[in-house]
Order: sequence, then structure tokens, then C-alpha cells
Amino acid sequence: MAETQNSSMFAARQTIEQVEEGAELAPKFDADGLLPVVTTDATSGEVLMHGYMNAEALQKTIATGEAHYWSRSRQVLWHKGASSGLVQTVVEMRIDDDQDAVWLRVDVAGGASCHVGYRSCFFRSVPLGPHAAAGPVPLTFEESEKVFDPQPVYGDAPNPTKL
Amino acid sequence: MAETQNSSMFAARQTIEQVEEGAELAPKFDADGLLPVVTTDATSGEVLMHGYMNAEALQKTIATGEAHYWSRSRQVLWHKGASSGLVQTVVEMRIDDDQDAVWLRVDVAGGASCHVGYRSCFFRSVPLGPHAAAGPVPLTFEESEKVFDPQPVYGDAPNPTKL
Repeated sequence: MAETQNSSMFAARQTIEQVEEGAELAPKFDADGLLPVVTTDATSGEVLMHGYMNAEALQKTIATGEAHYWSRSRQVLWHKGASSGLVQTVVEMRIDDDQDAVWLRVDVAGGASCHVGYRSCFFRSVPLGPHAAAGPVPLTFEESEKVFDPQPVYGDAPNPTKL
Repeated sequence: MAETQNSSMFAARQTIEQVEEGAELAPKFDADGLLPVVTTDATSGEVLMHGYMNAEALQKTIATGEAHYWSRSRQVLWHKGASSGLVQTVVEMRIDDDQDAVWLRVDVAGGASCHVGYRSCFFRSVPLGPHAAAGPVPLTFEESEKVFDPQPVYGDAPNPTKL
């Protein structure tokens, strides 16, 4: 497994000070072996997507400079853009204080990151404040049109969204 | 429980089209009852932190316009800033395509969000490209100084970072 082959890329987590204030990569993967990843547009700062990496995806992202994730719905290593052409070139990678979350600043080929066809997966906003009316909170669309039509791009591939 | 009291704020997830392209809030909480949350500075676009919300935290954030999270380390509802004064006022809340992740754009009282004392929790970058040398990948500090000293702010409160 890649984790074993490249384990020297990651330091063992030994002290809180080392993890929080040290200068070596010592990631903490969760019980499923995953780290959450926030991906933003390097130019606009917009959050494009929220995904996950396993150790192999993290290693490949570092080594290649292109975003790799772990697809939880398909249970495979996922080189973003392999199907859609919407490759994400990583401009900067950051890791958080306790090293259990990653932030990628990326340039996106084609300008879109969402499998539904929008630029960002976060294309709807949630209004704030008391909701007096009964019923679900209404969402507001913040992107007026899709950047691409997903059907010809993804064809009959299973939709990753799960109910 | 708050989930029961306020369950009408959330729609039942019935179809993929409804979840992805509909205009009602129908969040998907994970097996632990949590949603991941990306929090960015509303002005700079910088990612400040990555956290989690349970249903009650989501409801309180919507209702009050101040960020509430679920603290996994302390296992409590966490009104950010209650201890530190670093309250996050939500400028905009977004939800992603399959409604299993939230993005908050916030203004932060005091300008810092990280319990270590930095502006952002993501204060270190990970260099990209092949790492020929043996040993862990070295990190680069991207913030040169802390915004506040955590000791007088948090005192003897347990550090949330876990090895």
C-alpha cells in the first residue's frame, strides 16, 4: 500500500507542541483513514468543494501538484478531472493546527468544480435569522447558470450524491 | 432534543434532484450526526477553520447569525467565542450540492480564529513536488506572529488537539 511505501513523508505524532507548532507534516487520519479537504479558488477565494483524502491521495497531491481525493461514494482514489477534464492545479496546500484538515488553493481547468455543473458546489445560500413560517428553510441560488452541462461530461456514471 | 423541536426547519431527503437542485434545506448528517463546516474570513476569503455542526448547532447558527459548532473533543455544543471572545458573525451561509457540508463566511471579533493564537488555523503550508530527501515533509509558517496569546485567554482549559 502507498501508506507503507511513503510513510516516511509523514512524521509520527508524538506531542501536541510538535503537531501544533512544529515544522513537519504529521497528519491525523480519522477512523476511516481520511482527512477532510477544503478546496478554494486560488484567485477568487471562493470555496469550490469539500472532500476527503486518504494517505495515498495526500501523497499524490503533494507529489504531483494536482488535487487527488478519496471518493467515499465510489471508494476509489480520485484524480479530480480524470473524468470531467476539470483538473485542479494546486497553487498552495495548507494544513491546520492539529493537522487533521487540509486546505487546497487551486486553479481549475474549465472553471467548474461541481458535478452538478456549477462553478462551486456551494451554489446555494441559507438565509439567516428566525424562521417564523413552518416548513424547511428556503435556499437561495447564488449562481445564476451552470458552467457546463454534466450529462455529456459524466454520461451514465453513477451520481455521487446519496440520500 | 433540539432536533425534534426544530425538525421542521429541515426537509426530508426524498430525491437526488430535490437535494441537489431544490430550494429547501435538507441537510445530511453523518453517522455521528455531524456536518463538516468550512469557515472563511468574509473579507479576505482566507480559510480560518474547519469544524463540525450537529443539528442543534446548525439551527442555532441560522437563528442567531453567530457561528455555533459541535466540539468533538469536548462533546458539547460550542458557541464560538464564548470562552475567547472571538465570536464569529456569519455574513453568509452556503450549503453544498448534496447538502452534507456547510460554508460560513464570517467576520471575526478580534481577528483570530485559531486556539493556538494565529489568525487562521491553517497557518502552515505544505510544499509541493517530489520530496527526494528521507523524512517527513517540512512545513512552512505562513503567519509570522500570533494575533493573541492563548494562555490568558484559555487558561487551564484542556487543549482540543488530540494525538
